[in-house]
Amino acid sequence: MRLAMIGLGKMGGNMVRRLRRAGIEVVGYDRDAKTVAGLAEEAGMIAATSVADAVSKLGPPPSPRVVWLMLPSGDPTENQLKDLAPMLSRGDIVVDGGNSNFKDSQRRGAWLAERDIGFMDSGTSGGVWGLDNGYCLMVGATPEVAKTLEPVLRALAPAPDRGWAHVGPVGAGHYSKMIHNGIEYGMMQALAEGLDLLKGKQEFNYDLAQLTELWRHSSVVRSWLLDLTADGLKNDQELANVAPFVPDSGEGRWTVIDSVEQGIAAPVLTLALQMRFASQDKKGYSYRLLSLMRNAFGGHAVKSTGEGK
Amino acid sequence: MRLAMIGLGKMGGNMVRRLRRAGIEVVGYDRDAKTVAGLAEEAGMIAATSVADAVSKLGPPPSPRVVWLMLPSGDPTENQLKDLAPMLSRGDIVVDGGNSNFKDSQRRGAWLAERDIGFMDSGTSGGVWGLDNGYCLMVGATPEVAKTLEPVLRALAPAPDRGWAHVGPVGAGHYSKMIHNGIEYGMMQALAEGLDLLKGKQEFNYDLAQLTELWRHSSVVRSWLLDLTADGLKNDQELANVAPFVPDSGEGRWTVIDSVEQGIAAPVLTLALQMRFASQDKKGYSYRLLSLMRNAFGGHAVKSTGEGK
Repeated sequence: MRLAMIGLGKMGGNMVRRLRRAGIEVVGYDRDAKTVAGLAEEAGMIAATSVADAVSKLGPPPSPRVVWLMLPSGDPTENQLKDLAPMLSRGDIVVDGGNSNFKDSQRRGAWLAERDIGFMDSGTSGGVWGLDNGYCLMVGATPEVAKTLEPVLRALAPAPDRGWAHVGPVGAGHYSKMIHNGIEYGMMQALAEGLDLLKGKQEFNYDLAQLTELWRHSSVVRSWLLDLTADGLKNDQELANVAPFVPDSGEGRWTVIDSVEQGIAAPVLTLALQMRFASQDKKGYSYRLLSLMRNAFGGHAVKSTGEGK
Repeated sequence: MRLAMIGLGKMGGNMVRRLRRAGIEVVGYDRDAKTVAGLAEEAGMIAATSVADAVSKLGPPPSPRVVWLMLPSGDPTENQLKDLAPMLSRGDIVVDGGNSNFKDSQRRGAWLAERDIGFMDSGTSGGVWGLDNGYCLMVGATPEVAKTLEPVLRALAPAPDRGWAHVGPVGAGHYSKMIHNGIEYGMMQALAEGLDLLKGKQEFNYDLAQLTELWRHSSVVRSWLLDLTADGLKNDQELANVAPFVPDSGEGRWTVIDSVEQGIAAPVLTLALQMRFASQDKKGYSYRLLSLMRNAFGGHAVKSTGEGK
């Protein structure tokens, strides 16, 4: 089996390494030629100079030839797919392993199906640890397409028989990954709030590195997120150099939008996202307004920024 | 070292078993004589017919003699401690291994200190799995008291060198256990909300047992709570026989009260608790009121219960 990986960033590059360790031939392309050359040298990847070159290096049909996109969601994935489709033949398969919105994946799957090209959406969890631990893969596809990709999934997963699954039709892979990330937001926020309360309780002068390490063993909250937190706090628990600003990517927002569209309550996942927005808001206009109102009705002092006059 | 365990329920009984496995002599008392007889027979525990009998079976001073209370928090622990203190001598130690409020533990520790009796508050996580996995123990005490209890903590923990720690002065054990449980509420709610959205997404017809099992391997949300959820969903994922009613014990509430007292935001921990209250509210009076208001200002139809006239 031969597969082309398009996009050799943090995720795509490590996935190529993992596939090569399993002896799977991979053609690789990235906009950055140095990355391509490096992976060719290091992992025995077949270097491509363009997407067209990558497809040609998969050899001629008979199909299926597989092109795996590992690109930022939105325009980069959309544009690449538009360029790629005319280069493929009936029976070939495109995999989107990025964090695309499941509605885009459903639309793209239908669009490729009209051209008799298969599509699989793969929700991929594991981050930078996936190279060694394996990736958790939730894939949406027809049974035939999923079957074709099975050797690749078995190589990328933590073990051939676990950590990957064909969870439903096209779209179901990215939808379940979206919910996975929504849950991740909630779990992270719960851990962060609890540790913040412990930090605030000055009379007990807790060593948060000790406590989080302790909880890793037989406690109810033991989890991979706790493991990472405990490791991080070992070096520094003041976090003075970490700005209190939490970015968010698409999946947390889409989870909340989906909760609204389904009319199913998900208040904690929603609030975990909203707290990230609050952290991103440097202007604090709503807080300024509240201060204004308190002053207006109760004469409460307004704390000044010292700016303006 | 000889220790008396008062209260041989789910937690106390298994702790006796674990201590006995480590060769520690334990005198045990419970209101239920059958439980006492059973543990004496099964685990070689020294049976006591009353708390006074348990103390006398610890032998005469020299101290320290250790009495470990494993009772429901609130009045049962308070009353037992009041009865127990006069039976003890200078230098003896009382351990409260239950889920007491840390303020009670601070007060009790000070009260016993006036009598030259030591006190240790032990936050104990691990539930019914603790017998085999070991307990995660967060203890608050003076360094001397913690040192005396070290052999017991090493036997109860998952391993002699991990899963237990002296985290601070009296009160610090129960406070950290309280926050641990607050975090647990948030993590549980995040998982439940995400799985509820997946269940609602009928077009994908997910097998939630498959998905949760899948996430156990290399995903970011892998956790012990996910492990238990995956195991539970294997047998039944409709949960038709499980009432949608979630009790709460003291710790979740105390975490939220502490957030208010410290003035530190913990919105997700708070909301996770509030959602439990909502699940407990069969009357739904606030929902009835909202329906009334919608009808009043907009003429929107009120859904009838069919009760009354």
